Formats: sequence, C-alpha cells, structure tokens
Amino acid sequence: MNKERIVIVGGGACGAKVAARARRNSADTEIVMIEKGPYVSYAGCGMPYYIAGAVERSSELMSMLWGTVRDAKYFADSKDVTVYTKTSVQSIDPAGKTIKIITASGEIKNIDYSKLVLATGAKAKVPAVKGMQLKNVFVLRSLEQAEAIRKAVESEGMENAVIVGAGRVGLELADAFNAQGLSITIIEMAEQVLPDVLDSDMSHYPVNTIRSEKINLFLSESVVEITGDENAMVKKVITDKRELDADIVIFAVGITPDVELARSAGVRIGATGAIAVDECMQTNIPGIYAGGDCVECTDIVTGEKIHMPLGSVANKHGRVIANNITGRKDTFPGVVGSCILMSLGLKTGKTGLTEKQAKRFGYKTETCLSVTRDTSHFLAGSKNIVIKLIASVPDRRLLGAQIAGTGDIAKRLDVAATALYFKATIDDIASLDLCYAPPFAGAMDSIIHTANIMRNKLADSVKTMLPATVRHRLKTTEDFIVLDLRTKEEITEGKSIDDGRVMCIPLENLRARINELPRDKEIICTCQYGTRAYEAYTVLKNKGFQRISYMECGMFGYTWLS
Amino acid sequence: MNKERIVIVGGGACGAKVAARARRNSADTEIVMIEKGPYVSYAGCGMPYYIAGAVERSSELMSMLWGTVRDAKYFADSKDVTVYTKTSVQSIDPAGKTIKIITASGEIKNIDYSKLVLATGAKAKVPAVKGMQLKNVFVLRSLEQAEAIRKAVESEGMENAVIVGAGRVGLELADAFNAQGLSITIIEMAEQVLPDVLDSDMSHYPVNTIRSEKINLFLSESVVEITGDENAMVKKVITDKRELDADIVIFAVGITPDVELARSAGVRIGATGAIAVDECMQTNIPGIYAGGDCVECTDIVTGEKIHMPLGSVANKHGRVIANNITGRKDTFPGVVGSCILMSLGLKTGKTGLTEKQAKRFGYKTETCLSVTRDTSHFLAGSKNIVIKLIASVPDRRLLGAQIAGTGDIAKRLDVAATALYFKATIDDIASLDLCYAPPFAGAMDSIIHTANIMRNKLADSVKTMLPATVRHRLKTTEDFIVLDLRTKEEITEGKSIDDGRVMCIPLENLRARINELPRDKEIICTCQYGTRAYEAYTVLKNKGFQRISYMECGMFGYTWLS
Repeated sequence: MNKERIVIVGGGACGAKVAARARRNSADTEIVMIEKGPYVSYAGCGMPYYIAGAVERSSELMSMLWGTVRDAKYFADSKDVTVYTKTSVQSIDPAGKTIKIITASGEIKNIDYSKLVLATGAKAKVPAVKGMQLKNVFVLRSLEQAEAIRKAVESEGMENAVIVGAGRVGLELADAFNAQGLSITIIEMAEQVLPDVLDSDMSHYPVNTIRSEKINLFLSESVVEITGDENAMVKKVITDKRELDADIVIFAVGITPDVELARSAGVRIGATGAIAVDECMQTNIPGIYAGGDCVECTDIVTGEKIHMPLGSVANKHGRVIANNITGRKDTFPGVVGSCILMSLGLKTGKTGLTEKQAKRFGYKTETCLSVTRDTSHFLAGSKNIVIKLIASVPDRRLLGAQIAGTGDIAKRLDVAATALYFKATIDDIASLDLCYAPPFAGAMDSIIHTANIMRNKLADSVKTMLPATVRHRLKTTEDFIVLDLRTKEEITEGKSIDDGRVMCIPLENLRARINELPRDKEIICTCQYGTRAYEAYTVLKNKGFQRISYMECGMFGYTWLS
Repeated sequence: MNKERIVIVGGGACGAKVAARARRNSADTEIVMIEKGPYVSYAGCGMPYYIAGAVERSSELMSMLWGTVRDAKYFADSKDVTVYTKTSVQSIDPAGKTIKIITASGEIKNIDYSKLVLATGAKAKVPAVKGMQLKNVFVLRSLEQAEAIRKAVESEGMENAVIVGAGRVGLELADAFNAQGLSITIIEMAEQVLPDVLDSDMSHYPVNTIRSEKINLFLSESVVEITGDENAMVKKVITDKRELDADIVIFAVGITPDVELARSAGVRIGATGAIAVDECMQTNIPGIYAGGDCVECTDIVTGEKIHMPLGSVANKHGRVIANNITGRKDTFPGVVGSCILMSLGLKTGKTGLTEKQAKRFGYKTETCLSVTRDTSHFLAGSKNIVIKLIASVPDRRLLGAQIAGTGDIAKRLDVAATALYFKATIDDIASLDLCYAPPFAGAMDSIIHTANIMRNKLADSVKTMLPATVRHRLKTTEDFIVLDLRTKEEITEGKSIDDGRVMCIPLENLRARINELPRDKEIICTCQYGTRAYEAYTVLKNKGFQRISYMECGMFGYTWLS
C-alpha cells in the first residue's frame, strides 16, 4: 500500500458521511467503502414515506436535492471513493491491518487499511415466532425490504395489515398503510404505545388518534404464531388473545446493533450491546473507529451510555470520524435522547429522559402536563400541543420533555433538547427569549408556559391531578367534588363527566358563588384545558379551602382516556 | 389604607400579567390597574392580523381561548382586580406613596399604594412632517388606532397605501394591506429593509419577496410632506425623490419608551431612554417596579442594556414583578434579542446580534450563509430557509443568527436563542441532538449544517464569497472564472449568469475535466444552493488550485439580487 487507505465497512448514513468528509479533508488518501446490500447512502428514515407512496421511487431516498443518485458511480466520479456493494466483510485482522471481503461476484479479497471505520449499523429484531418465513411477513430495516413491502402493499387483494410493535417505526408504518388504504391492526406487547418515547400518561393521546382512525390497537398482547395458505402466503396472525386476518405482517419490534464483525476482531462491545468508542469515536483498537447505529453514545443527561440509532446521530458520528482519521482532531460529546415522529396527523416526540427512565436512574422527579396552542389562539389554524416536562428535585434541572399534538411540537422539543445539552434548569426554560409573533407562538411560548407551571409545582404552591387519576377515582365511591369551571355552552358542546359529584360554576362566577362550595370535601378543579382550573385553584386556596387540586390538561386530557 | 395595595399603571401585557399573577399569589392584597385607553390586556402584536381581516373583531385580541373578553368586568369578577380605563396618571408622590389620577369622568383622585408598578409601554414615533394631521394618516400603537385603520382600509374608494418604515411593523402592515387588496408603496429611510433585524446581505431576500408581490419599495428615501384635499383627506406623499398617490398613510418608524411619568417621579432612566431596573425589575425607588415596553433589559449576549419592546418579554417581566411584590423573590436574567415576523409568505427573524451590531460592539466576527430545506428534501412540501450565523473570533462563540425563508425558520431561531442564552459555541450548535424525522428536518438539521459550514470557515479550510460580491465583480472587467457546477438541465431551466467568464462543468464531471480549468486564474465556484460549489472547492483545493472560493447560497442567493 503506497498511500494511506481508509476502509469503511457499511455504506449507510455514517459510512457515506465518513467517505465524503474524509475526501473533502484529504486529496491523497485512498477511500474504500464496503456495503453488504445493493444500495448506499440512502435515507433509511424515509422508508415509511416511500411505502406510503408519498415518495414515488426508492431512488429518491438516495438522491441529492438536484436529482443525482448517490450510487457507486456517483461516489467514484464526484468523490473519488471506491464503493463495493453486495460485498460482505468476512474478517478483520487488526494486527495486519487488513480485512477479508467477498465481493458481489463471489471473489475473496484482502484489503489493507491505514484506518478502518466500522459503520455496520443495526439489524431488525426477528422474534422466534412460527411462520416468520411466510410470504408477506416482513421486517423493515433495508431499502430492499422497503421495496418489497411497497410492492406487496400495492398488489392485488391486499386488505388487512398487521403491525407488530407500536414503537416509532410501527406507528410510522401504520400511517403509511393508512395512506395506502389498508385495514390496520397494531399489536404491542407493552401496556402502552411508544414505550420508549412516552410515559403512560402521555401515551393516551396517540392512542386516541389511532382509535379515531379506526385502526385496531391491542396492547399487552403478543404474537404466538403466523399461519399461511397453501402457497405459503400469510393469512392469519395468532396472538395470545385472538386470531387476526392478515395479508401482510410487519414486525417492528426494535433493532440491535450489528456488532458481530467488530466482536470477532476484538473490538470492545459496551454494556448496551453496541460498540464502545471514545469521544473521538475510536474503539479500543487504535486505528479502528466506529459510528452510527452500531455504537453506543454518552447520554449527556445522565452521563451513562445509551444506544441511539438515528440518522441524525450517525451523520454527526461520520463527520467526527472523518476529521479524526484525516488529522483534524474532533470529538462527539454525546446525545440527549431526542426523537420525533409523525403518524396519522399527530406529531409525537421526546428529548431527555421520560419520567419512567428518570426514576430508573434514581432521580427524584417532579412533572407537569400542559395543553396550549402552538400559535396565538386568535389566529385561525392554531393547534393544540401537549407538553410534559420532567424535572429533577431539588436541583430543578430539566431531565426531559415529551410533546404530542397536531401543532408545532418540533420547535419546543428542539428548544428542550438544546436546553438539556446545557443542563438547563426549569427556571432557565422559563426565562428563554424565544421568538414571538402571533403566527409562531403565544406571547408566553408553550414551553415557557409549561415551565412556569412546573415552577408553581416546585414552589409547592399548587397541587395537581392527572386526568387518569380523576377518572380512576370517579370509578370508586369516594366522596369528592369535581368543579367544572367551563361556561354552560362549552359543557353542552364538549365532553362532560356524567357523575353526581360534578359541580359546574363558570370561572367568572366563582368568586361570587364560592359559598356554594362545601369546605369539608375534597375539590378537584377542571375546565377545558386546565388554565381556568388552575385559576380557580388559586381562588379556592386564597379563600382557605384545604383539600384542593386541579386537573392537568383539563377535559382535553380527560377525553383521551375514553 | 388598611391592607396592602398594588397599583399598576398601564393595562397592557405586562400590567395585566402583574395583576393576574399577583392575585394568584396573594388573596388579601388590593390590586388596582390604571389604563389610559379604553382597552386592557389585548394582544398588540395581533393588530396587523386584525387590520388584514384575518382576525374578524378587535375583541378577539383580548379574548381568552374560550371566548371570555378580558375587560374591566372580567378582571373584577374573575380576579378581584379593580381596573380604571380611560384614566390617566397625573403624578406620583414616591415619598407619600400615592398617585394622582384623572378618571374617565374627569374626576381627580389620589390612590395610595404599597407597591407601584409602571407598565406604561411605549409610544409610536411621530416624525415632524407637514400634513401628519390629515385624515387617514396613522401610526399603529393602540387597538383604537388599529380599529381606525381597519375602518379606513375597508372604506369606499381605498386604493393606494403608503407605509413609511420597512421595519417589522411596516412589513406586517404591508402583508395586511396586501391581504386587503390595496396597492402598496413602502418608503424606508435606511438603505435596506428590516435594518434592526437583518444585515444587508440577508435583507435582499425579503426585498425579493416584496418586489415579487408588486409592492413598490423605495430605500434610502424620506418623506418630506403629506398633502390632502379640501376635506383634509390625505392625497399625496411627497418624498425627497418623488410624489406618490395615497389614500392611507401609516408611519411605522419605531417606538420610544413612555417614561415621562417615571422621569417626573425621579425614577432613573437608562442610557437607552427606557426605565432602568434591577434584576428584580425594581427601579431606583424602593417599592416602585417597572416592566414591559417602558424598561430596558440586559442583553445576555453583550452584557449591555437594550430596549426590547415585545409582548413575550413584557409577559415575563410581569410574572417576575408580581412574584417580587407578593413576597416571592424572582429575577429576570435578560434577553438575547429574538424577534420574528411573517410577511407576504416569507418568514424572517433574528436572535442575538447582527453582524453590524456585533462589529459595533467591537467583536471580531466570522459569518456564514447557507440555504437548506427545512424538512427532508425527498418529501413534497419541503421549503428553503436561509441561515446566517455570526460567531466571535477566536473564541468561537455564537453571537447571532438571522433566518429567512418560506419554511420553518422559527424552530432554528429558537434553538439559536436557547444556545445564546447558554453562551454556546459554534461547536456546541453543531453537536446538538435535535429531533430528526423526515417531516421535521434533514438528518443534519439546517442549523447544524450551517454551524458545520462555519466550522469549516473558522478552520480556515474554506474561502467563500457573497453573491453580492460576485455580482459586483462581474460588473468590472476583472479577469476571473465563475465555475457553475450545475447540470445542463438546471442551467437551462434556472437562472444563469450571462457572462463570458462563466464556465459550466457539472460536479460529477469535475474530476475528469479538471485540466480544462486554468491554474493561473481566480475561480469562484457556484451551483444552485452552494453545496456542490463547496464540494468543487474542496476538489480544486485538493488538486492544488490556489485562488479559489465558492459562492455562499449559490444561484439561489444570487437570484435575490436581481
């Protein structure tokens, strides 16, 4: 080997980024990228949109903005990068600095390297269920699989789709299948949808959306077997609770980092099951770097390692690796655990820790839930967003945010993600100078408003109750009062609680009618969104009422539960 | 006075917030709010939308989400706050802790206070131009003025509108008048539009939008006189360069803090001309607080005082003041100077310092300009946004961001605003773990991508040129080459530069055809958006070309200039 040679194993987001950036940094280095599949550098996160038909051709997922497709020829011509597709790496010899590959044509070759980059990605989990080999049973991890799914979905007689797993990919696929007009059933083993994204209280919101789209959703349920017809075509999914007709079945039950090659070469695997790297993205073996879905990252919030397989993270890894292997020191500080998805018109996402995760890490937490409009409410088109914040007690640090809604959730999530990076307190969030004009936010932006609710709770100046708790307590015979502060018109038009324990007094009349309220009973205030309930709470508190609380998100939150 | 009494002068965003929050904090305090106009607690920033007809009734700007109007009765019934409207405060006696008011009925009264809050807001600047008293000549600072403007706009025979001032309010009014079908002329004294929001390089973008809407825009031009007909109805605006027909004229040339009352009471006025307050929002006189558009704020970026009259800031002030005057210590850390506007379909905003401002503060700066799609480009509906970042050299701190585009600029501005609050470096921005899914961002979010361009520039590994500079140089007889890296189809369909110095080689062919390029001439690379131009730059650099640069934002940026 006359000159330096960078060899990259894996042509996905990280690998392709390493190749492109390394070439920009260095003219003389030889760069070789090896990919086991037929395609390189495609937007894997775009596959559900291709399956939905929103993206017409699969090649669009590997096209530049101006239409050029990022294939082997493109990498050769534009970037002087040699790409081997349909080529697998058999082994790595770290001492000899060489790898053994089997090319598309079956040829076995050794390639020497100066620097080796492992960007081997992750594999879909394939459960050990009988019938997995049947036709039209899929996992979705590669563009070839996406092409096969799209073809199946658009084939004759396709009617019933079963999606196993109500995580991010599962719900994005539900959206895609819905767009394609299929009847959909989602089966999820956990008690809730999006278990890695949302706490159970927030998860009611997407459930409500899923059900309103006439999609069957079965929680706490497992697939036992899949059966087919005489042509080995899938026909039924059998769960521990029922049998479902199925013309297509997708398992979206998670992914695991692809680390076999790394492990066999003596590369250290972390406790998460992904490759361990230092802040320069170098593995325990000098000269071998790793990035993308096959490595673990530092969680900036907790300081612990986590596996965060996302294209956004992989791209950053690629740049850091390329810089380090071309002589420019660079570091990757870690992630805060941000993710977002759009499904069935509902946007959902989180950053940082969920309450559940925070508790698992031993944090003492306070939480709050709010529903607000994403723009000034006097403008047509303003939409609801629900925010849950999690703070650490007593140090008031923001630990995480979950947001769902039809409105602009991404902006508030990214603000929270930025704040988490800087270890912000709740007070910092409330003090942020976010951009304000009516088409973009309320004068108090949704996340600032929510941070202020949290400050009220942290000051112990307010006691709240979750809608689910109120609903649960209404099912008992406990003696308490739900005080509904909405106007008569709102109650007539909207959802109301049909229970003798509900009293209705519009907020404007509360001070005048306060003597109608019994002082010896617990009172839970509610209204449409929680704002008036909070206001009423302060009125009652100031008037010396003792056992009072208000329902977070009001009837808007209560409605999800139905 | 038997119990504590909080007296608030001004019923706008800050005053109303003080009243509401103080009541929540405290049952026993008497709360009095005095407003010189007929309305309280309205969304002043919503007035252009009311004038446009997008908000039907002015009362919607002072309505709660559930329809209740925030008038004096609302404050009395719901919040036990006494509101005086159409009431002016004549004087303050700080020693006696009393103020003298003249009520709507002309009655003169003294009101004692325990705590006094000055939330007197700001006044529109009214230039000393002949004819300002003519009918249908307006400034826009109050809801009554908005009502009068809306009435005028919707009256018979209304055709030509002249807006004086191309700042935020001027451009929002242009949008409103455009929606109402008027012919619009904007006159701006400065050389550019939005002089407080954008640097001149970024200002070409909104200018392009304004002109594409067939709105006349005259820069570096001043109004000399306004003339009317025999009924004192405005007819013409005379500038230092021309005469314009006008049926309505609005002066939107800025505002000044309303500090006369404060000054006369001995309250200290800062160098900005606004009331000076400490971090608890207390003035130099104990017991007298001030907030909203009449006070100055600390600029977190520079540490200096600035005047930042915005509803978002005023609301935060109100909460801090209310807490402090009801026994809960609270502080307001300052602003970073964020603002945003929507006009004619274009969104524009900034946070932190402009390059111009940064230079004025003595910073050594580096800047960069990028154009990217706001979502993954393979999805229909992805839109362009242009980002300019300003960094401090050599400490790499972010000093400011300006963003304009038809896509989602608000998210990136708020990320930058949050980063500025925490004194982020450019490297921090590039490392942020922002939420990624195709409908929300590219895998490298626009602001991360732009931060990476900045990192390239800070590493001195790339040399760029602004479109305006290239255009200017093309007007000279200098000998250099503009290398256009677009495909033949793009050049045919799109805007191209008609000049003998332009050479076209698609990026994919550059490596093969590199010998066609002269090594003795300066080469400026360009393409559609700048991405390929940058790539080509690295190819040329790696091949030993010396006098090279690439055009930031490519032909997209060049097109604005026409």
